[in-house]
Amino acid sequence: MLYRISDENKYYSLYSCIREDILGGKLRGGQKLPSKRAMAADAGVSVITVQTAYEQLIAEGYIYSKERSGYYVADMASAADLPARACAPHSVGEPAGGSFAFDLVSGSPPAELFPFSVWSRLMRNVLSDEGEHLLERVPCRGDAALRGEIADCLYRMRGVSVDPARIVVGAGAEYLYGIIVRLLGRDKLYAVEDPGHLKIYSAYSQFGARCAFIPVGAAGADASAVERSGADVLHVSPSHQFPTGAVIPAAERLRMIRWARERGAYIVEDDYDSEFRLAGKPLQSMLGLCPDRVIYVNTFSKSLAPSMRMGYMVLPADLFQRFMQLFSHSANVVPLFEQKTLAAMIGGGYFERHIGRLKTYYRAVREEVLAALASLPFPVEVGDTGSGLHLTAKFASAPSDGYIKRVAAARGVNIRCLGDYLSSPRAVFSNTAVINYGGLKKGQAAQIAALFRR
Amino acid sequence: MLYRISDENKYYSLYSCIREDILGGKLRGGQKLPSKRAMAADAGVSVITVQTAYEQLIAEGYIYSKERSGYYVADMASAADLPARACAPHSVGEPAGGSFAFDLVSGSPPAELFPFSVWSRLMRNVLSDEGEHLLERVPCRGDAALRGEIADCLYRMRGVSVDPARIVVGAGAEYLYGIIVRLLGRDKLYAVEDPGHLKIYSAYSQFGARCAFIPVGAAGADASAVERSGADVLHVSPSHQFPTGAVIPAAERLRMIRWARERGAYIVEDDYDSEFRLAGKPLQSMLGLCPDRVIYVNTFSKSLAPSMRMGYMVLPADLFQRFMQLFSHSANVVPLFEQKTLAAMIGGGYFERHIGRLKTYYRAVREEVLAALASLPFPVEVGDTGSGLHLTAKFASAPSDGYIKRVAAARGVNIRCLGDYLSSPRAVFSNTAVINYGGLKKGQAAQIAALFRR
Repeated sequence: MLYRISDENKYYSLYSCIREDILGGKLRGGQKLPSKRAMAADAGVSVITVQTAYEQLIAEGYIYSKERSGYYVADMASAADLPARACAPHSVGEPAGGSFAFDLVSGSPPAELFPFSVWSRLMRNVLSDEGEHLLERVPCRGDAALRGEIADCLYRMRGVSVDPARIVVGAGAEYLYGIIVRLLGRDKLYAVEDPGHLKIYSAYSQFGARCAFIPVGAAGADASAVERSGADVLHVSPSHQFPTGAVIPAAERLRMIRWARERGAYIVEDDYDSEFRLAGKPLQSMLGLCPDRVIYVNTFSKSLAPSMRMGYMVLPADLFQRFMQLFSHSANVVPLFEQKTLAAMIGGGYFERHIGRLKTYYRAVREEVLAALASLPFPVEVGDTGSGLHLTAKFASAPSDGYIKRVAAARGVNIRCLGDYLSSPRAVFSNTAVINYGGLKKGQAAQIAALFRR
Repeated sequence: MLYRISDENKYYSLYSCIREDILGGKLRGGQKLPSKRAMAADAGVSVITVQTAYEQLIAEGYIYSKERSGYYVADMASAADLPARACAPHSVGEPAGGSFAFDLVSGSPPAELFPFSVWSRLMRNVLSDEGEHLLERVPCRGDAALRGEIADCLYRMRGVSVDPARIVVGAGAEYLYGIIVRLLGRDKLYAVEDPGHLKIYSAYSQFGARCAFIPVGAAGADASAVERSGADVLHVSPSHQFPTGAVIPAAERLRMIRWARERGAYIVEDDYDSEFRLAGKPLQSMLGLCPDRVIYVNTFSKSLAPSMRMGYMVLPADLFQRFMQLFSHSANVVPLFEQKTLAAMIGGGYFERHIGRLKTYYRAVREEVLAALASLPFPVEVGDTGSGLHLTAKFASAPSDGYIKRVAAARGVNIRCLGDYLSSPRAVFSNTAVINYGGLKKGQAAQIAALFRR
């Protein structure tokens, strides 16, 4: 610890002065320094202090000692053009946040719905029960207990049986996409949905993969476009596409699976909000249809809290082998503490109860949103498949996407349109707002609608 | 939740039977299904159950309804060649761990030295104090309080002033290297130390960057090789190179900085175990010399626990701007809970006290290791710069690296040689064991030496 103890300060000031003189060119390479005794007398410090300073300068290579001769300045030929002291970095500050009264873009579940008392009780339990085991290195795939609970949960909620050994826990979806690119290779062509989450496209691109766009229609990603794409990997959200809300029908799913089998391609099934099928039962996953070609990805960001950077994927057997080859020596990046707590939450039934409460809540909010849209004084065409936490609203009479967003922003409402998620404009998706009600509180939908009736 | 409630079971069995028949080809595309009433009578269930099953099949696209006509099987042309039910994935099991009595390769600090009672008390405090704030999304750079504490700590421990705004917290060093590649580009040439940590080379390579090797000598990475390398990024551990233990002298550091300035290159300063300079004071960081060209990276894996996947980097101003452009919409992957706890640990002085205790401990272990090496019945040349948690031991009389490792393994000692970290063999580094004593308990060094004296 530099600067703290006062006699360390003395050594450090002396060390700094000499170093600055060397860096500033006052002391030249080869020049002899005063003996320790002479320097001590000169600087008014003890010989020990000088010795400590000299030793530090030797360790850092500023000076060297010659036996029975003394201390010499090292050759710093390239130092002259450096500033003697690096300029203080200017403060870049913290970025300003948004300032909308209502957010229909990035909504996350209201914090008051989170079972915080249960969560903190489980955390305390984990802390007492696991104790110092929490300090152990987490195996690359994640904690075995959590993977077991996730497998059970997938069986109960999605009706698929998976081997917990092939589940990989990671720090959120984008982190997992990075692993997928490393497993499958950057030289592969990754097909993503258009319109789609820009984050997915940029995650693959940032990891160096090439991307192709697959147009999404009323039946989700177009299977014939997939067949023509030349892609090696297809990333789809079959049960509730973002942002269109489309569901890929069974026949198209099977066609994609056949494509994957024939081509040796993989399908990344992005099941990001399948927990929230509000009308009817959950839709069958593609993983259940074809576990050998489907990489299933889901996270707890929507279902628990966005700060919970935890997601998982289920790998086909061949990719699992490759994963272990590449990563078995790496530690898992999600803290064991969070993994154990989540395992206790799922195992104790709290997670599914929480999902149940959230669904009840969102069913009510969805009804409010539908009623609010119906109350607007202009024609609205609602696109809603009864799933997930968003729906679309086409305002046929609006002149443009920009107009919709400006009118909304003027009323304090942050909103995006389908066009914001498209690689290039398509008439069928024009003038269509994406209404993400994941972050709406009860009553807010009516409040927002009232702003537009004035 | 499928399967749970008994009348959901009825609906689900019916739905499954129909689905299997469609997938198996018993029901053909265009075929009309019995009316709800007829199906109910046939299957011995209620009309509501049939309706629920039909709705699910419609939602998933297996069947469709024609108004005033009834329900029809969708066209599943491509289904015939799919197995009706996906085969159960075979269990791949959990991999077996190593079985050495002594580990001189990947040692992490003995768990009993970790101030677990302090850590768990701070966790409990954070849980009570922060409450539901812990559920908030963590900004891309990490928690501001933690970044502030890290900046203060860098000032106290490394003598450098950094703006906390330019600190980025991430899930361990390899995770941060991935961000560095995305900031600087995969098209750049990354120079890494040879011998060096294979993890560093593979992290850059896995993210798609090209790598060049810079030979490491007694004075660390060779600056003239850096100048000739054509590299755009230089990754070095100047204060204690792994595995050689070399320290880059000041003149060479300045030469590398001049190279970086002239070329517009960046230096990644990997300060992975700078806390553990056991003899003398900490060596000055390159960041302090040139904050505009140096990306400083450090983690808490060595100083706290390997399960603590938390590291940070300090970015130059230009890269910081680029980081915010690329990542300001991404959430930080380290849970806020861990970040707040670590901030409390540093802010309360516990972290530095812990480092102090670890240093005292490791000084004793290092003395034991040196004594143990001196007690061996064959010539040993020790390479030790008094820093970090490893040193090298050259056994000039050994016939090969393989011999050293086999003899050690036969005695239950896991050890690696410098050659294991080299891109190609170099005579100067032959027959040299790397002794990582980070995981040794007191007394173990003598026990190990005794095994070789028998």
